[in-house]
Amino acid sequence: MRLVTFVPPGERPRAGALLGPVVVDLAAAAPLVFEEAETLRWDMLSILCHDQEEVSLEGAAEVLAAVTSMVSGALPDAPSGGNGSHNPGMPGSLSIGGVEMLFPLDQVRLLAPLPRPASLRDFYTFEQHVSTAMANRGREVPAEWYRFPAFYFSNHGAIYGPDEPVPMPQTESLDFELELACVIGREGRDIYEDEAAEYIAGYMIMNDWSARDVQGREISIGLGPAKAKDFATSLGPWLVTADELEIYADDDGRLSLEMVARVNSVERSRGNAASMYYTFSQMIAHASRDTTLYPGDVLGSGTVGTGCLLELTAGYGPWLERGDVVEMEITGLGLLRNQVV
Amino acid sequence: MRLVTFVPPGERPRAGALLGPVVVDLAAAAPLVFEEAETLRWDMLSILCHDQEEVSLEGAAEVLAAVTSMVSGALPDAPSGGNGSHNPGMPGSLSIGGVEMLFPLDQVRLLAPLPRPASLRDFYTFEQHVSTAMANRGREVPAEWYRFPAFYFSNHGAIYGPDEPVPMPQTESLDFELELACVIGREGRDIYEDEAAEYIAGYMIMNDWSARDVQGREISIGLGPAKAKDFATSLGPWLVTADELEIYADDDGRLSLEMVARVNSVERSRGNAASMYYTFSQMIAHASRDTTLYPGDVLGSGTVGTGCLLELTAGYGPWLERGDVVEMEITGLGLLRNQVV
Repeated sequence: MRLVTFVPPGERPRAGALLGPVVVDLAAAAPLVFEEAETLRWDMLSILCHDQEEVSLEGAAEVLAAVTSMVSGALPDAPSGGNGSHNPGMPGSLSIGGVEMLFPLDQVRLLAPLPRPASLRDFYTFEQHVSTAMANRGREVPAEWYRFPAFYFSNHGAIYGPDEPVPMPQTESLDFELELACVIGREGRDIYEDEAAEYIAGYMIMNDWSARDVQGREISIGLGPAKAKDFATSLGPWLVTADELEIYADDDGRLSLEMVARVNSVERSRGNAASMYYTFSQMIAHASRDTTLYPGDVLGSGTVGTGCLLELTAGYGPWLERGDVVEMEITGLGLLRNQVV
Repeated sequence: MRLVTFVPPGERPRAGALLGPVVVDLAAAAPLVFEEAETLRWDMLSILCHDQEEVSLEGAAEVLAAVTSMVSGALPDAPSGGNGSHNPGMPGSLSIGGVEMLFPLDQVRLLAPLPRPASLRDFYTFEQHVSTAMANRGREVPAEWYRFPAFYFSNHGAIYGPDEPVPMPQTESLDFELELACVIGREGRDIYEDEAAEYIAGYMIMNDWSARDVQGREISIGLGPAKAKDFATSLGPWLVTADELEIYADDDGRLSLEMVARVNSVERSRGNAASMYYTFSQMIAHASRDTTLYPGDVLGSGTVGTGCLLELTAGYGPWLERGDVVEMEITGLGLLRNQVV
C-alpha cells in the first residue's frame, strides 16, 4: 500500500491510499467497510498509532480493497514515477454512492506522508559516505563506527513534502543528502534485532538538507549537527508499507533498492540501499535500548555513498543555490522533488 | 503561577495550578469562570498552544484567581520547598459547590509538567562546565563555542516526572546534570533576541541524565550524544510562569537563581543561573533561525558549573548506582527528586 497525506482543493489535510493514479480518501471511503465510520479521524499518525479501532494499516487496506473492487477496470494505469502525472481526461474528483472519495493524484497537493513525525533520528550507516566525509576532515573512519549504528536526533518540526519549496537557510554551502527512511508502526522498547522488522510500518525517501559551513562550526564543539540540519527535512512522496518492498529483500531482509539523486535534471548520485553497513533492524535494536520507540518515529539511514555534494566535490562545492531543483528517486518509493527558493 | 500535571487517585492526568499546598484542578474549576467550560480539555500542551479559546495561561490564571477568592484564608501556608509536604489534617480533596476541585499536593501523583514536550533542545551555555568537560578530554574550549550557543536535539519521548523512578540504563558511569529549562509558549521563527522573552511561558528544573561511557564512544563518531542521553530526562516538579521569576532578573533579564544538586542528601553541586554565558533570549534567537519554534518546545540551559559528577570527579567517577536518590533545587522552581532503580 502507498499512503499519502493530501490536501483536496479548499480542504484540510487527510490521509489517503493510492489506487493507480488516484488518491482514495480513506475517511470518505471508510463507511463502505465500517459502521459509524463518520466519527473516525484518519490522519497518518492515527493510522500508525491505531488509536481508534478501525484506523490502522489493516483498516486502510480494507477500505482500499473495497474501493478497488467497486471501481475495478474503470481507472487508468499507475504512473511510472513521480506524482505529477497529468491525465486531462480525469475529472476533479470521483464519487461513489454520491460521496466524493477519489481524487486524481495530479489535482491534489501532497504533504509529507507524516507532516509531523513523532520524532526524527538520523543514522550514519553507509560506510562509503562515512569514509569520504571523514577523509574530507583528514580522518579515518573511527573504530567506534564499526561497533554500533550511531545516530543523532534531528528536528521533527521542520518537515517538507513533495514539491514543497524549501527556503534557502543562512548558509554559503547548502547540500542535499539522499537517504532511505523507515517509519515505526508499533510501540516497543529493548527490541531484539530479529524481531525489529515487525515494528516497521513502511519506508519513504528522505532528503536531509544540510548546511556544510554551519556543520563544520558545530562539529568542533562536539554536540553534533543541529542548526546544520534543523531547517528542513523532506519526506515522501508516499509511505510505502513494508510488505510492498519484500520482493526487493534478500534472505537477511536487506533491501536492494536503487537510489538516485538529480540536481536540475542532471544525475549526481547513484547508490543502493543494499550497501548499508547496518540494517534497519540493527538500528531499531540500538535506538530502542533503554528507551521506547513510538508509532510515527522516523529513522533515516544516513547518506548513501555519493549521495551528497560534500562527497562529490571533496568538500569544496559548488553547492546548491536558490532555484535549484533536487529530485530523489528510490526503487518502489517514487520520486521526491523540491526546489530551493 | 506554578502549573503541574497531576494524577488524582484513580483518574487520568490533568493540568492544575498550585494554591499553597493544594492543587487546583483547572478543568473542574473552569466553570466558575467560563460558560460551557465542561467541553474544554485542560492539559499542559493545550494551555501552551492555546488551541481552545479559554485554555491558555491567562485562562488558567483567571480560574486560579476565582478559586483563590472563594477559599481565601481557609488554606494553610505554602510549602517551603519540595512537593512532599505532609499535612495530616487535610482531607483527600475539597469541593466547591459540590464539585471536587482541590487536591492536597501530598495526596496526588505529579507527572512532569510536560509529560511529552513538543521537542527537547539542550544547550551548553555554562562556561565553567564546558571548560572542565573539555579539559577532561585534554582540550581547551573551542573558539566556536564563544561564537554561538550550541545545542543538540535530545529525546522528548523519555521524560520522567518528580519522584518517578528512573531505570538504570546499560552503563557503567551514570551521571546527573543540573540544568534550568525554559518552555516555549508561542510559535515563532527568526525571533529577535530582544523580543525572545515574550516567547517564554515559564521555567522548570531539568536533570539531563547521562551515560558517560556511552557518550565517550559516541563523541568519537562526531554526531554528538544520542544514546548517552536518550534514556531519561527529568523535568519538574512544576512549570513556573516567567512573571514569577521577574524578581530574580537583572536589567538584562538575566536570572539570578541558586542551583543545587544533592545525591543521597549530600550536596554535590552548587551554582547560579546568572553564570550562563548565553541567555535564554540568545538561545531562542539562535534556535529559531530558519526554523519554527512551537509551544511546548523545551530548551535546556546545559549543565551549571560543578553540576555533574563528570566535572566533580575529573571524569573518573564514582558514578551513580542503583538506589541513589538525586535531588535538585533551584530558587523559585521547587525541588526535583528521582531515584535510580
